[in-house]
Amino acid sequence: MDHLNTHSEIHSLPRCKARLNAIADALYAIGGKWKLRIIVGLKDGTKRFNDLQRLIDGISAKVLSAELKELEMNGFVKRNVYTGSPVIVEYELTPYADTLNDVLDTLSEWGAKHRENVRNSMKRAEPEQAAENASVYSPR
Amino acid sequence: MDHLNTHSEIHSLPRCKARLNAIADALYAIGGKWKLRIIVGLKDGTKRFNDLQRLIDGISAKVLSAELKELEMNGFVKRNVYTGSPVIVEYELTPYADTLNDVLDTLSEWGAKHRENVRNSMKRAEPEQAAENASVYSPR
Repeated sequence: MDHLNTHSEIHSLPRCKARLNAIADALYAIGGKWKLRIIVGLKDGTKRFNDLQRLIDGISAKVLSAELKELEMNGFVKRNVYTGSPVIVEYELTPYADTLNDVLDTLSEWGAKHRENVRNSMKRAEPEQAAENASVYSPR
Repeated sequence: MDHLNTHSEIHSLPRCKARLNAIADALYAIGGKWKLRIIVGLKDGTKRFNDLQRLIDGISAKVLSAELKELEMNGFVKRNVYTGSPVIVEYELTPYADTLNDVLDTLSEWGAKHRENVRNSMKRAEPEQAAENASVYSPR
């Protein structure tokens, strides 16, 4: 009890747990490296598979295909097949994907600011420190 | 050109690309299964390693240790060592972690609503469809 009191956990723990669960649920549905980027890539309209792959730097056809299937199963993306010659397959966002607008706004705003911060701290730093920062920011 | 016009990409493409890059930058820093959850776990105050591990369902000591190191390198978490007997090591958020507040708010709000939606659609669905939805939502 004393331990809990000193760490002021008694009142905030349930709220913290609820938040933790909600974040876990969100990350479960839209976490990972690609899902949100695919959704942003479809924001300005319906796209064919190859156009989408060109737009999203670094995604392989295999991964894009798997991610699109998951996004479709979870109700974010609709796959339209136009039979004809040639058959045309296009992907579009569902109205449910629009529920993510606030998430996408805050995340892209934060990402732009964060990039600016990293760039500024690399400029300010001594050369050896800049090199250190660069290694932190470059892909693992 | 005609192709681009029909897909109305000419004007929206740069904005879409900027958004895609910003989202990629954000996910690079705070993406993955655990980072945001660790940050939420430290929101109500400084914590020791074991307390943090207990709070975050399913994280192993090895992964938590690696994630904390990355969060420290990228300026979100501060590691405090109190020499004494026993030595106490505690983790706390930096002021920079507060820049993520809007992201955490929108994401946890969305996560809570999404869970509600999934639950409702499983209730409404026929038994066989509910089972199908359940398999979509359960861990892969």
